[in-house]
Amino acid sequence: MSKGMTSDSEYYTFGPHKIHPKFIFYTTNLSYAMVNLRPVLPGHVLVIPKREVKRFGDLNADEICDLWLTTQLVSGKLESYHNASSLTLNIQDGPEAGQSVPHVHIHIVPRKFSDFARNDDIYDAMDENDRALKKHIDLDEKRMDRGFEEMAQEADEYTKLFF
Amino acid sequence: MSKGMTSDSEYYTFGPHKIHPKFIFYTTNLSYAMVNLRPVLPGHVLVIPKREVKRFGDLNADEICDLWLTTQLVSGKLESYHNASSLTLNIQDGPEAGQSVPHVHIHIVPRKFSDFARNDDIYDAMDENDRALKKHIDLDEKRMDRGFEEMAQEADEYTKLFF
Repeated sequence: MSKGMTSDSEYYTFGPHKIHPKFIFYTTNLSYAMVNLRPVLPGHVLVIPKREVKRFGDLNADEICDLWLTTQLVSGKLESYHNASSLTLNIQDGPEAGQSVPHVHIHIVPRKFSDFARNDDIYDAMDENDRALKKHIDLDEKRMDRGFEEMAQEADEYTKLFF
Repeated sequence: MSKGMTSDSEYYTFGPHKIHPKFIFYTTNLSYAMVNLRPVLPGHVLVIPKREVKRFGDLNADEICDLWLTTQLVSGKLESYHNASSLTLNIQDGPEAGQSVPHVHIHIVPRKFSDFARNDDIYDAMDENDRALKKHIDLDEKRMDRGFEEMAQEADEYTKLFF
């Protein structure tokens, strides 16, 4: 399969989750980029190594390079696409860092001036840790699971950025 | 200069700042790792490309690979050294993401169970944005600038991890 293309017949794994190919908008031989079930801001996506490894330290050199070159490409496209001016790039590497899905993933979040009242409230919003989420009811309530169509459509839009 | 060594005569730049070689504990041809003026947790260090570029998107492929391979090595050593069990790996890429020094840098923070009352309070503590710091007086007060000797000694300790 050529770089940047996804096939409807190809599923990817994200820890215990099976990811529908419609949610994936960019792939390389070693990595894929997908839209988010609960984005904290427009363009909040994940870049994930195809091989299921729990920790960043488990990746080999080829995977690390591919993952971050993919992240550079994807994040640049999304920053422009969303008329943002900065990026939050983050790995919660291990449960004590807030990782809930035991499969390495990079959070990309395009940032704009005053997108959060306090700049770093994004991390509370991004946190996958139930304990933190429960303490942020307002943010949690705003972050309902999205429907399949909405997610697939967003992935479609992002796919076009790479042609 | 061989990999992993620093020379007392070699200074590095970090945006407008000149970094004393004593604060640097690991180098490659393209990247260096240094201890932090105001660590939010033990082992909070920075990995920085030697070339002064503002944004992650400005790095070339060799620099990206080197930066993140260095981060993998350094973060693994520091996680073990500090008996931590997870890692926060983060780039505040641009001012709207909290970046105050206009030179790409990766934050590495070893994490342990309950090192912050709420897992993501680390981001408030890590924030370089004055506005956020001023709203977190307690954290700010605990984070006095450290002395030269303390920082140089920590860099010495970390240097030993790579032999």
